[in-house]
Amino acid sequence: MSSSRFAKTPKPPYYAVIFTNQSTNVDNDEYSQTADRMVELAQTMPGFLGVESTRDNDGLGITVSYWQDEASIANWKANGEHIQARQKGNQKWYEHYELRVAKIERAYDGPR
Amino acid sequence: MSSSRFAKTPKPPYYAVIFTNQSTNVDNDEYSQTADRMVELAQTMPGFLGVESTRDNDGLGITVSYWQDEASIANWKANGEHIQARQKGNQKWYEHYELRVAKIERAYDGPR
Repeated sequence: MSSSRFAKTPKPPYYAVIFTNQSTNVDNDEYSQTADRMVELAQTMPGFLGVESTRDNDGLGITVSYWQDEASIANWKANGEHIQARQKGNQKWYEHYELRVAKIERAYDGPR
Repeated sequence: MSSSRFAKTPKPPYYAVIFTNQSTNVDNDEYSQTADRMVELAQTMPGFLGVESTRDNDGLGITVSYWQDEASIANWKANGEHIQARQKGNQKWYEHYELRVAKIERAYDGPR
């Protein structure tokens, strides 16, 4: 059963950060260690609800993290270790990215 | 340049449908033909803004489609060919999925 890769989110409303990114494939080992560490760290943050993440063989990744409210997202953005990781991402790991902050209004699961 | 896999979205607010799914790997050829057709069809729908989609080797996919407003999403959901495709998805293509509808409130791109 692969449901552990799905976030167990509460009833809406809550927030999502949708991060679509194209990897440069530079320093992949350091990148993947840092990505794992960021998930570990995010889990300790107040208001963190879960994360879903995948990447294809061409290096296009989508990571969606879920948060209780805007304040939780702001607090995570201000975390020092997260700031350092984002700097490396900007400098070398990402060819391009789009980051969107959204309010989840409704949700359902399936198959149904 | 891989930016063609990123949606060219307008300034927020607009809407997103976040579809996280685990493939069964059943009838993959028919699935991928149908998925391509759904993107082609969505592009003809009023209010469609773009789509970003990726899937890893373990079959975990995330597809985010972007829409002008809730009415555009409702109209797309009511499309007959889309309804038929969703039925097949429920019957055989997806082991599990989570679908979330969200209002994009802010966005930026990078690297910066």
